[in-house]
Amino acid sequence: MTDSESVLDRQPVPTGLSVTVIDIDDPDDLRVDDFRDLNSVDRRPDLPALPGGRVGKGLVIAEGVLVAQRMIASRFAPHAFLGVDKRLHELSADLRDPSLAGVPFYRASADVMARVVGFHLNRGVLAVARRPQALDVADALAGARTVAVLEGVNDHENIGSIFRNAAGLGVDAVLFGAGCADPLYRRCVRVSMGHALLVPFAGVADWPGGLDILHDNGFQTVSLTPEPSSPALAEALIDPATGAPRDKVAFLVGAEGPGLTRAAMRASHVRARIPMSRGTDSLNVATAAAIAFYERVRAGQ
Amino acid sequence: MTDSESVLDRQPVPTGLSVTVIDIDDPDDLRVDDFRDLNSVDRRPDLPALPGGRVGKGLVIAEGVLVAQRMIASRFAPHAFLGVDKRLHELSADLRDPSLAGVPFYRASADVMARVVGFHLNRGVLAVARRPQALDVADALAGARTVAVLEGVNDHENIGSIFRNAAGLGVDAVLFGAGCADPLYRRCVRVSMGHALLVPFAGVADWPGGLDILHDNGFQTVSLTPEPSSPALAEALIDPATGAPRDKVAFLVGAEGPGLTRAAMRASHVRARIPMSRGTDSLNVATAAAIAFYERVRAGQ
Repeated sequence: MTDSESVLDRQPVPTGLSVTVIDIDDPDDLRVDDFRDLNSVDRRPDLPALPGGRVGKGLVIAEGVLVAQRMIASRFAPHAFLGVDKRLHELSADLRDPSLAGVPFYRASADVMARVVGFHLNRGVLAVARRPQALDVADALAGARTVAVLEGVNDHENIGSIFRNAAGLGVDAVLFGAGCADPLYRRCVRVSMGHALLVPFAGVADWPGGLDILHDNGFQTVSLTPEPSSPALAEALIDPATGAPRDKVAFLVGAEGPGLTRAAMRASHVRARIPMSRGTDSLNVATAAAIAFYERVRAGQ
Repeated sequence: MTDSESVLDRQPVPTGLSVTVIDIDDPDDLRVDDFRDLNSVDRRPDLPALPGGRVGKGLVIAEGVLVAQRMIASRFAPHAFLGVDKRLHELSADLRDPSLAGVPFYRASADVMARVVGFHLNRGVLAVARRPQALDVADALAGARTVAVLEGVNDHENIGSIFRNAAGLGVDAVLFGAGCADPLYRRCVRVSMGHALLVPFAGVADWPGGLDILHDNGFQTVSLTPEPSSPALAEALIDPATGAPRDKVAFLVGAEGPGLTRAAMRASHVRARIPMSRGTDSLNVATAAAIAFYERVRAGQ
């Protein structure tokens, strides 16, 4: 390409990058297939690779400078980038990371990018990684003292918000019980500000029986519920034997509307409620979780 | 209409309604113009009627059964409904409210509704009201003991979430400083679960000087900030002279990213921070506000 628009679009490649910058001018170029049709229900590259049945590529997409930076810092090692020249320059310090040696940065115009991904992406840069092996619950809990456990949370934005709130308020791990959506879907990763890639998480295969691993590891399991007869949150976090805050706490939260199942609540040690005004709806699940996390921070844990 | 689909679509009108049920089969029917082109940037009926310049209709749209019920219970008196037969029946108890005498309920198929509003609306019912005269700050503060004050919050979903959190956590009024979006836009009303219609709100014309009305009325004004040097939230809500919780508190919150302006922080009594993990982003503004509201509830206020 030698036309004037391209000349204006592209500054010289920054020096010392670990990534290899490759210009893409044809939206049908096969090399950018991992970024293709991001909004497609059945072809998007971040569909999980299911065992048997429908098979997705099982990739993870980071969107925007901040989330791409967090992916580079995470255990999700990006194997390619697609972005406009401006974002290449904004990311240049990050793209010198030795772990990115030889990784392609596909540089394209905003228009070519839009034709690859299927819509105009105003964040201007994407990174893609293969999913590493999932953590098991014991790995995710290593060193953890505050944990969030989700049941039936099938809204990607809520899961993303819970990761963001977990990172901001000192939660060490997130566990997924039955009925939750994929935390590695692009929208979830984006809403989490990339923290879905950084906060350790794992799925609890046997639900809710698998909660016993928390009990075996000394966690007090606390089910959040709007039930007015339940003790207030602050009370549930104190060990009545000592009057001190519990050492390890896991908060169980359920979907808006139905909330936690009876089985999950029965499998936990205690129930706790956020004091609410009469006659109003429960809070959004991510907001309720944030308040629980805050109460824990507040107690100095 | 006598074709079989219509017969199946429409049950007999419930008895005893205050509203007048009128069947609409033509999407171009002028009687449903107040519901037309809801997503249009320049024609949507809930654009504010600006003094001079561009003039909108200044209507308020409630979407879905729950929000329509809250509109009926609010000072925003609906002057028309548009909905499918199923929603007419779900709302029948509410539609017997004498305040709705003679108000039209335009009954339409989902397809006709979609062609009126411009997209498929899966909540199936809308109510529309004219904006009543705005409250002034003194009206909004009447009897209030906990208040949220917003500056630069220009995201409708965040404003909606703040209203929902305010209602759930006992906040009596919301004040709008400079740079905020319209709290009566449809998306904001929907995200608020209708509480934008129920929690009193008012705009502070002189910003931030107008905060003095809070001070004159005995409110402690508390600016939320991530500044690590600021006192923790819990501390800021206690009167050091008595050790008891402050009687009246107003929380100032700013937009994500920039936060509150220096001028607004200087105009408030104290700053307070939510204890956060190092190196993470600030919380979403509605989440931060919810935590502040919770801290207030927690202190028994």
